[in-house]
Amino acid sequence: MNELLSALAAAVGAPHVLTDPESMAPHLTDWRGRYTGTALAVVKPAGTAEVAAVVRACAAADVAMVPQGGNTGLCGGATPLPDGQTVVINLSRMSRIRAVDPANNALIAEAGCTLAAVQQEAASVDRLFPLSLASEGSCEIGGNLSTNAGGVHVLRYGNMRELVLGVEVVLPDGRVWDGLRALRKDNTGYDLKQLFIGAEGTLGIVTAAALKLFPRMRSRATAWVAIADPAAAVTLLARLRNAGGDRVTAFEIVGRPALDLVLKHLPGARSPLADPGAWAVLVELMDASADAPLGEMLEQALAEAMDEGLVLDAAVASSLAQAETLWALRENVSEAQRLEGVSIKHDISVPLSRIPEFLERADAALLTVWPDARIVAFGHIGDGNLHYNLSKPNAQENTHFIARTEEVNRLVHDVVDQLGGSISAEHGLGQLKRVEVRRYKSEVELELMRAIKECIDPRGLMNPGKVL
Amino acid sequence: MNELLSALAAAVGAPHVLTDPESMAPHLTDWRGRYTGTALAVVKPAGTAEVAAVVRACAAADVAMVPQGGNTGLCGGATPLPDGQTVVINLSRMSRIRAVDPANNALIAEAGCTLAAVQQEAASVDRLFPLSLASEGSCEIGGNLSTNAGGVHVLRYGNMRELVLGVEVVLPDGRVWDGLRALRKDNTGYDLKQLFIGAEGTLGIVTAAALKLFPRMRSRATAWVAIADPAAAVTLLARLRNAGGDRVTAFEIVGRPALDLVLKHLPGARSPLADPGAWAVLVELMDASADAPLGEMLEQALAEAMDEGLVLDAAVASSLAQAETLWALRENVSEAQRLEGVSIKHDISVPLSRIPEFLERADAALLTVWPDARIVAFGHIGDGNLHYNLSKPNAQENTHFIARTEEVNRLVHDVVDQLGGSISAEHGLGQLKRVEVRRYKSEVELELMRAIKECIDPRGLMNPGKVL
Repeated sequence: MNELLSALAAAVGAPHVLTDPESMAPHLTDWRGRYTGTALAVVKPAGTAEVAAVVRACAAADVAMVPQGGNTGLCGGATPLPDGQTVVINLSRMSRIRAVDPANNALIAEAGCTLAAVQQEAASVDRLFPLSLASEGSCEIGGNLSTNAGGVHVLRYGNMRELVLGVEVVLPDGRVWDGLRALRKDNTGYDLKQLFIGAEGTLGIVTAAALKLFPRMRSRATAWVAIADPAAAVTLLARLRNAGGDRVTAFEIVGRPALDLVLKHLPGARSPLADPGAWAVLVELMDASADAPLGEMLEQALAEAMDEGLVLDAAVASSLAQAETLWALRENVSEAQRLEGVSIKHDISVPLSRIPEFLERADAALLTVWPDARIVAFGHIGDGNLHYNLSKPNAQENTHFIARTEEVNRLVHDVVDQLGGSISAEHGLGQLKRVEVRRYKSEVELELMRAIKECIDPRGLMNPGKVL
Repeated sequence: MNELLSALAAAVGAPHVLTDPESMAPHLTDWRGRYTGTALAVVKPAGTAEVAAVVRACAAADVAMVPQGGNTGLCGGATPLPDGQTVVINLSRMSRIRAVDPANNALIAEAGCTLAAVQQEAASVDRLFPLSLASEGSCEIGGNLSTNAGGVHVLRYGNMRELVLGVEVVLPDGRVWDGLRALRKDNTGYDLKQLFIGAEGTLGIVTAAALKLFPRMRSRATAWVAIADPAAAVTLLARLRNAGGDRVTAFEIVGRPALDLVLKHLPGARSPLADPGAWAVLVELMDASADAPLGEMLEQALAEAMDEGLVLDAAVASSLAQAETLWALRENVSEAQRLEGVSIKHDISVPLSRIPEFLERADAALLTVWPDARIVAFGHIGDGNLHYNLSKPNAQENTHFIARTEEVNRLVHDVVDQLGGSISAEHGLGQLKRVEVRRYKSEVELELMRAIKECIDPRGLMNPGKVL
């Protein structure tokens, strides 16, 4: 053990090997405070060679490793287990943008760059890095990549996986694979980077990535739209994309109970519409052209939809400030929910066409058992992805309800499964869902996953107790 | 052997097991006629269960298999080796569209569907399946997926990999993995489908795929633009994307020698410009909106670029027919080259920003050794992908030149490698480049590739002698 600590200190410098409980603490608990682990040490390498040296030292000592970025994950994937037998390797000191190539629409960022830093770097060369999510100020690229992060622009730009051109990875034995090619087309064998994207650090440590940039968007139009039911949202999205194509960059749904929580807890929040309706969607159009008439396009499409009864009412933002006010209603749902109390959360996806059926069936199954459950449904409906959260208004009854989390999960996930969906759309498995997922994946798929793990990390040194 | 043939007949019906040389012949030679192999049989299953039964029969007899679709590949990946010890499994009878879900922007196609059939199915529900390439009438989805096909719309929509939501695969032991989820977001463990995309049939047989659909494009503008050099093309693309964003759906370059061959060999072809210049780009803008003023947008952008000297001259198509005439000049380069005689071909990519440097350095290296070599360069410059082909005008000298193919490849590929590029941008490795690639990949990467092959196909039954 002392030998390992000496080797780690030799690799990264003694000040970057944390072993006292106080300085380790922020790295041992996840952001939600749901998981707390212990560790032999938290190590903070400053470069790829240092990461490789750390991994070699751990492998030599037969000690497993937990890679960690901004520690903003929602499934405990970056939190060590309570056994205290692992070393946390935090990449936050690797925060250099190594290269920016606007003509190639690419940049190379180290794993510890925050998502916001990458967005800013792209903007500084008049380009867009489109990944956008609530924690963008503190989450880091290595974590975004390892969890295949989603967010509000997946509808147009895809998940993190689709934004990655190449990766640099330290393998479980300390070898470095330099796959940092910034190419749009490369068909020279197996696309190995795909293995590490979304693997939640169980196959190696991503130390840098070549990322895609896009044309910067210069026009924007935003609207808050009241609709009668989720089926109307599905139809409306098809209409908007038919007319506007990929100008539709965001399409989020907010159920009335979610909106009500925001109106209750967010200081100064008010409904954009006199009658907010049972459901609302937040629509955003963007265009690279500075003078694109997006407001007119959106108003016309919404007016037509209103004439047909598809839309009940709508407010189109007339300024950037108004647009931000609308976005705040969507972005504060999670926080409002937290202020309201504990809830049972789900991060599910189904084919978009089956979202209405999912809600009908899941609502019915739950309300049969718990007639007074409060269903807070919202999220990225354009991607078929809902955050479907449950609680009871009364605090004491809610405590009993929370104790039944597994039963609730089962009801919800069974419906998801029957509709060909996923029980973790964008958050990953981590510690939270690694057991649950076994219920819904075929034996063939689980065996393939285990075979890949065994193939790349035969000694099981990378992030034990996660995913598999 | 007789036992295997009986088992195959039992699996698919005797009429679908071909063993006589004449009926096997079309399946034993590649489209270019570069490779010819032999086989124990060519088997044509009609469904997933039949493919699984065929694979089980071959695995039981310890006989390797060669998956084959439309047999339009350019690297011999679907052609058996000359050893005659394999069974070709042709998927063309699996040509059913299993499901179309326009609200979810997805369809499920069997591996034997032609690309054109999938495009048409998408159009029939007012959607776009954007993959587009010269062989789209006869190439099949399983092959597109197994080679991660590219084509002319990668700039906007990505390669085949980015168009796939899910796959169904028969594994080397005959088990079926049903990964046909039609979800935009699914982070429940390793993304196994990525293993099979671009694996050229060396890890299993893709039998069906869930594919992404997009909004249909209703406006189009096309221009042929003369420029002085490739650097001007790189700058022009950045300008166009700045102004028009992702309306820029195609951006192809044609060097003067390539254009001259088309003008010589394509009946009725003529230059769109009085002075065609040293290089030309074919630009296409598209928009989902039916009344998007793309022509005006393109004309204005080109007029500004001409004022600055970036563009020498340009012709914007004023009708669909004119646009098709312009496209014919680009699409007939390969055919014109074939009519002219044999040439040494390369399918390379480098970061777009380094295309001018690639051409300078590769041209210089070649012309130093062979001053009279004719360099025919053209292709998907928007993706950093060029087809860079070489021949000598004099037939007899050309024969000697062709004999030096390996030396020529070496010069070109070394420059590609020095610029961080790929020696196979969109065609794959197949038989053609499986040895060459070893020179340019790191030992770590080759070992990872071999480890994956060993993990999924430990007995080496899938498409031997390809890729690895």
